[in-house]
Amino acid sequence: MKLASLKQGRDGKLVVVSNDLAWYADASLIAPTLQAALDNWDAVESDLRNLHTDLEHEAIPMMRFHERQAASPLPRAYQWADGSAYVNHVALVRQARGAEMPETFWQDPLMYQGGSDGFLAPRDPIPLKDEAWGCDLEAEVVVVTGDVPLGASRDEALAAVRLVGLTNDVSLRNLIPGELAKGFGFFQSKPASSFSPVFVTPDSLGDWWRDGKLHRKLMVDLNGAPFGRAEAGEDMTFDFGTLIAHAAKTRPLGAGTIIGSGTVSNRDSDGGPGKPISEGGVGYSCLAEVRTVETIQRGKAETPFLKAGDTVRIWAEDDKHHAIFGVIEQTVTAG
Amino acid sequence: MKLASLKQGRDGKLVVVSNDLAWYADASLIAPTLQAALDNWDAVESDLRNLHTDLEHEAIPMMRFHERQAASPLPRAYQWADGSAYVNHVALVRQARGAEMPETFWQDPLMYQGGSDGFLAPRDPIPLKDEAWGCDLEAEVVVVTGDVPLGASRDEALAAVRLVGLTNDVSLRNLIPGELAKGFGFFQSKPASSFSPVFVTPDSLGDWWRDGKLHRKLMVDLNGAPFGRAEAGEDMTFDFGTLIAHAAKTRPLGAGTIIGSGTVSNRDSDGGPGKPISEGGVGYSCLAEVRTVETIQRGKAETPFLKAGDTVRIWAEDDKHHAIFGVIEQTVTAG
Repeated sequence: MKLASLKQGRDGKLVVVSNDLAWYADASLIAPTLQAALDNWDAVESDLRNLHTDLEHEAIPMMRFHERQAASPLPRAYQWADGSAYVNHVALVRQARGAEMPETFWQDPLMYQGGSDGFLAPRDPIPLKDEAWGCDLEAEVVVVTGDVPLGASRDEALAAVRLVGLTNDVSLRNLIPGELAKGFGFFQSKPASSFSPVFVTPDSLGDWWRDGKLHRKLMVDLNGAPFGRAEAGEDMTFDFGTLIAHAAKTRPLGAGTIIGSGTVSNRDSDGGPGKPISEGGVGYSCLAEVRTVETIQRGKAETPFLKAGDTVRIWAEDDKHHAIFGVIEQTVTAG
Repeated sequence: MKLASLKQGRDGKLVVVSNDLAWYADASLIAPTLQAALDNWDAVESDLRNLHTDLEHEAIPMMRFHERQAASPLPRAYQWADGSAYVNHVALVRQARGAEMPETFWQDPLMYQGGSDGFLAPRDPIPLKDEAWGCDLEAEVVVVTGDVPLGASRDEALAAVRLVGLTNDVSLRNLIPGELAKGFGFFQSKPASSFSPVFVTPDSLGDWWRDGKLHRKLMVDLNGAPFGRAEAGEDMTFDFGTLIAHAAKTRPLGAGTIIGSGTVSNRDSDGGPGKPISEGGVGYSCLAEVRTVETIQRGKAETPFLKAGDTVRIWAEDDKHHAIFGVIEQTVTAG
């Protein structure tokens, strides 16, 4: 089943979307918003699935689905917690600045509490007041959970995954060192994220969802050119079950919690840092990583951060090259 | 005007509460929940105020208000961002562990993104699975904002303050050093916070709300004995306008954002660290601070962290010793 929220009010209007993303049916009589559906999942899931089946069979009135009319599936959420599960990425960034990475980073997930009071729609511009802030994209996989009990095991956590999607976790890189030095984590350095137009249930992914990971390439284009083609199912040190259980260690998680994978990152086939696509590699899912590789290899970063007019596309494909979750497509704008 | 949420579903039922906290009137026909009221404040504020006036005049059916029936005014929120505005507190904690405090801490507010997907009700127990985690209370002042535009000035930020209340920002002190060392801020070390049963509009505080600060003593009792009587209006380096503007520097804030002051802390009248109430001081608003003072003065912390059975009370009083926001009263329970 695929779900989306059309732009309407603060929380959007819930719709079910056909598997080919061409059509939608209004689901708001079952649950007005996606958050309402997640709050009451056991009661509404079968009705939503029946509606989706009817839509696939063209047995009900259906409307054209336009991704530009979609809000973030959760236009705002009660929780957005982002892990950093591709430890390879963390190791590289540390290597570039000459900082050792503690061995525990391979056992104990990194996770930060993100702002969730308002997300950008998947085709919204990224407003950037000051290019000196060092604006970066971060392409990631996310899951949305139901209620997760305090102290949930990895298996309990995985069973609570309701939906899977993608995010562009926008970051202001040049504000990060100062904030991390203060010790309280990210705040100003993490403006609003955007999410894929469509979130899907794990069962609809078939074999692409297994071991708590999405086994598809995460496609990233920058200004129309291929930038990242990393395999999200590889080099993910902590699967989503482990990330959710980490988040639930000292408190329960409310329905509608979004958990992020952190920037997807693959080692190169020779075991070293990833190469650009133009050099036969799988590329990158954020600018910081290519800048890091440049720093390691050539002594300084050459790829600039995002500036007004730059465009970012993030998606994942089925075997026929159709977008599974729709496409995040954003242009950076000044101010 | 005073507002509360009676326990009902995930988001409570909005009620207006009489100034003496003895009575309430159902406000759910105006707005079903406090979040709904904040989402639509300009449209509903006058109706809510009229209902409150009618309640004060006993002109409408009224019911007894029992604080134990109250949920957190926002049982869950889209944003909970906690500052650390009493820099005196930060300086002390740093002094105790022999760490220098950067001079910038006096100009640039500390703030962390807190979990907001589920708060404890003001009389709910504090569940503590492991006493070794070092459970602490943190008594603070909070404000709830309307929509705050990106890049808001301090004055614009202050004008967006809709409600004022108190919090017990529960912290797991022994998990903090490990989390801060990882650089991503607090996560497991900050389980669910609780809030005062009643939030009030700034105008209802009269002269007690000025310069973006609450000018009342923050009363804290621990196991029935006075523990803290710090003046919240003193030693607050960053007022709420400055804290909100800090939060809004790189992104707008959604209506219903809760901003915390951080642990309230006063210097002693001699300029040194605060003294216990039993020694004529104003005491403390968290255990970490008294433990810090003990460490500085006697070489080691003596006051233990919270354990099962310990009770915490947090409130503020009017001139007749009536609680302004009701009373947070919680007992720590195992598991």
